[in-house]
Amino acid sequence: MKFSAKIERCSLSPIRKFNPLALEAERAGKTIYHLNIGQPDVPTPKEYFDAIKNFSQEVLAYAPSPGISELLEAIKLYYEKINAPISISDILISNGGSEALMMVMSCILDDNDEILVPEPYYPNYSTFVNLTGGMIHPITTTPEEGYKYAIKERIESQINSHTRAILFTNPGNPTGTVLTKDELIMLADIAKEHNLFLIGDEVYREFVYNDEPLASLLQLKGYDENIVVIDSVSKRFSACGARIGCVISRNEELMNNIMKWCQARLCVPTLDQIGATALYNVGPDYFDSVRKEYRNRKDALIEELKKIPGVVYSNPVGAFYVMAALPVDDTDKFQYWLLQEWDDHGDTVMYSPAESFYSTAGLGKNEIRMAYVIEVEKIRRSIEILGNAIAAYNSK
Amino acid sequence: MKFSAKIERCSLSPIRKFNPLALEAERAGKTIYHLNIGQPDVPTPKEYFDAIKNFSQEVLAYAPSPGISELLEAIKLYYEKINAPISISDILISNGGSEALMMVMSCILDDNDEILVPEPYYPNYSTFVNLTGGMIHPITTTPEEGYKYAIKERIESQINSHTRAILFTNPGNPTGTVLTKDELIMLADIAKEHNLFLIGDEVYREFVYNDEPLASLLQLKGYDENIVVIDSVSKRFSACGARIGCVISRNEELMNNIMKWCQARLCVPTLDQIGATALYNVGPDYFDSVRKEYRNRKDALIEELKKIPGVVYSNPVGAFYVMAALPVDDTDKFQYWLLQEWDDHGDTVMYSPAESFYSTAGLGKNEIRMAYVIEVEKIRRSIEILGNAIAAYNSK
Repeated sequence: MKFSAKIERCSLSPIRKFNPLALEAERAGKTIYHLNIGQPDVPTPKEYFDAIKNFSQEVLAYAPSPGISELLEAIKLYYEKINAPISISDILISNGGSEALMMVMSCILDDNDEILVPEPYYPNYSTFVNLTGGMIHPITTTPEEGYKYAIKERIESQINSHTRAILFTNPGNPTGTVLTKDELIMLADIAKEHNLFLIGDEVYREFVYNDEPLASLLQLKGYDENIVVIDSVSKRFSACGARIGCVISRNEELMNNIMKWCQARLCVPTLDQIGATALYNVGPDYFDSVRKEYRNRKDALIEELKKIPGVVYSNPVGAFYVMAALPVDDTDKFQYWLLQEWDDHGDTVMYSPAESFYSTAGLGKNEIRMAYVIEVEKIRRSIEILGNAIAAYNSK
Repeated sequence: MKFSAKIERCSLSPIRKFNPLALEAERAGKTIYHLNIGQPDVPTPKEYFDAIKNFSQEVLAYAPSPGISELLEAIKLYYEKINAPISISDILISNGGSEALMMVMSCILDDNDEILVPEPYYPNYSTFVNLTGGMIHPITTTPEEGYKYAIKERIESQINSHTRAILFTNPGNPTGTVLTKDELIMLADIAKEHNLFLIGDEVYREFVYNDEPLASLLQLKGYDENIVVIDSVSKRFSACGARIGCVISRNEELMNNIMKWCQARLCVPTLDQIGATALYNVGPDYFDSVRKEYRNRKDALIEELKKIPGVVYSNPVGAFYVMAALPVDDTDKFQYWLLQEWDDHGDTVMYSPAESFYSTAGLGKNEIRMAYVIEVEKIRRSIEILGNAIAAYNSK
């Protein structure tokens, strides 16, 4: 049977191949420290479950295609509070940030259209773009430069007649880079001048560790036609399994086009929308304590990482990931070795080999992404294991 | 800003334009009888809500991309019971039947590829196909022939080098047509001979009123490469707002390709999957009583419809819709008139004008779809109103 060229260009998750080996290692008695997973361990606020438990209608009916009005109102209010006024009609609720991205991509990309994305980037962006027939045009960054991409000349030099948009994660996954307001304005000016959409994936917005106020593209004035923001409750409220996200834009024509997709898939689950609405009642105390916990984890990770000779790492300002270049030949090979051939007193470690975070062939081969979503003591031990492993691997 | 050619070919729901007029009519004191909505009024089994209320984990984490194992097991068991053995790996859970259809379409259709679909069909099929760059090639049926499409010569004559699949809803939305096992085999033989996917959208499977056992494409042997089934809990358990569906196929390569989409969007909501699992414990008594209620509604609708001169209708065997050709010039115009200019003792009626159920231009202009998801007495009154309205409209 013949399959579409679009799906043939997509890949299965490259992390998946390690799962059977991890199981095998655990069966053999090894303890694995997981730096490879972006699933937070912070409890989901009780408000979510309470709201769902209070649902008392007899029929679990379709919700409206754009989302339930209570959730739309809650999101509007949230943005008002961070000084980014939007209307209800600027928001469409989606099945997680993932669907929001799929919807936007399908509305703006045709075959051979290009979207600029700083690499390394969240690997699922590739699938979202490939499914449209379009392609990612990478803006390459390096660990030595701290993965900096907000450089006007470097971005503009990559724009051509096929370019339709710029997509970036801010705060950054996998790099932890956070843009300043001036850098956001610089990107918006480029987008406006070249008639491009500027798509900010801001799902990690709450996780910024430099005491700056929360930044959003939606705070900028004068770029309503260009700016699109992707948001989600997954990370903000540690509610990944709710799959509630949204796309926000003041570009009415874009929103009308996205609505076609929304209507075709009828709606986003009713109860999860009710739960998500309640999450927006969670106060700033919740974020403050979560942020503090993550900052401690990040600081511990960086402190330990410093002790390993030859490691080049981003000093992340936001999100909950650190990218690092290791002094090994190939982090994919190294991960196999860590699972199959090595342990430090019965312990080993998993991370995300970073090759799939790049679209330029050959890049990322000695890099890894680490998620700091486990407790501080476990993080310290993980990096200790990593250091010992690097030494052992290189003296083989 | 430029939008993709794919989204430009999609439309907003044609029903939407009547919503403000309906609101206006209600404000003016009219009572509207709704035959236009496919939202069942049957209570969702309590098991769904109970299972969700019993969830006691602290963190609402991502579910596995293919679906939670309990739900996959429950679906496997359900199919075993209707004599359609499948493996766990033949099932991928989706955000409703809608996402299941989007996933399959994106895996098999490229620009200008064609998928055969009997018309009239569920209008959202157009969006799912248009988003891939492919197109629907209709197999035209007529009210006078009872919307019959399972005719070998008629289908084969429409196959060309661009044809990739045949898609049909069975039991049929909007026609209520139910295929016999011999007709299913005939379709499967065509698919096999011409190397096509045969996609059965079987979300209305439980709603068959001729006392035949439940039929599924998955009961056929020898067509594993070709057959794909779309399923959902929405109609079966009156749980439209759960948005839990699945795609089922024994074609391993297809499932691997669909898995790429599943992994990219991470997962389907965790709690809804837990609720849906519990629904599969609902016994045959539930279906028997629901089926009996719908059969009564259908019989009442048909009985009343018979009394209106000049109406040609399908006598539906399944689902909960009736298609009918009315003796009026244009059912879209007629709907405007029903809302704006007419009432029968303060009452009027809404249906779905059927033009959007056809892709052949000009067809369906005098047809409508009626959903019998309201109580028997309301159905009788709706059709009485319709009959009186037709007489009044034609003697203007």
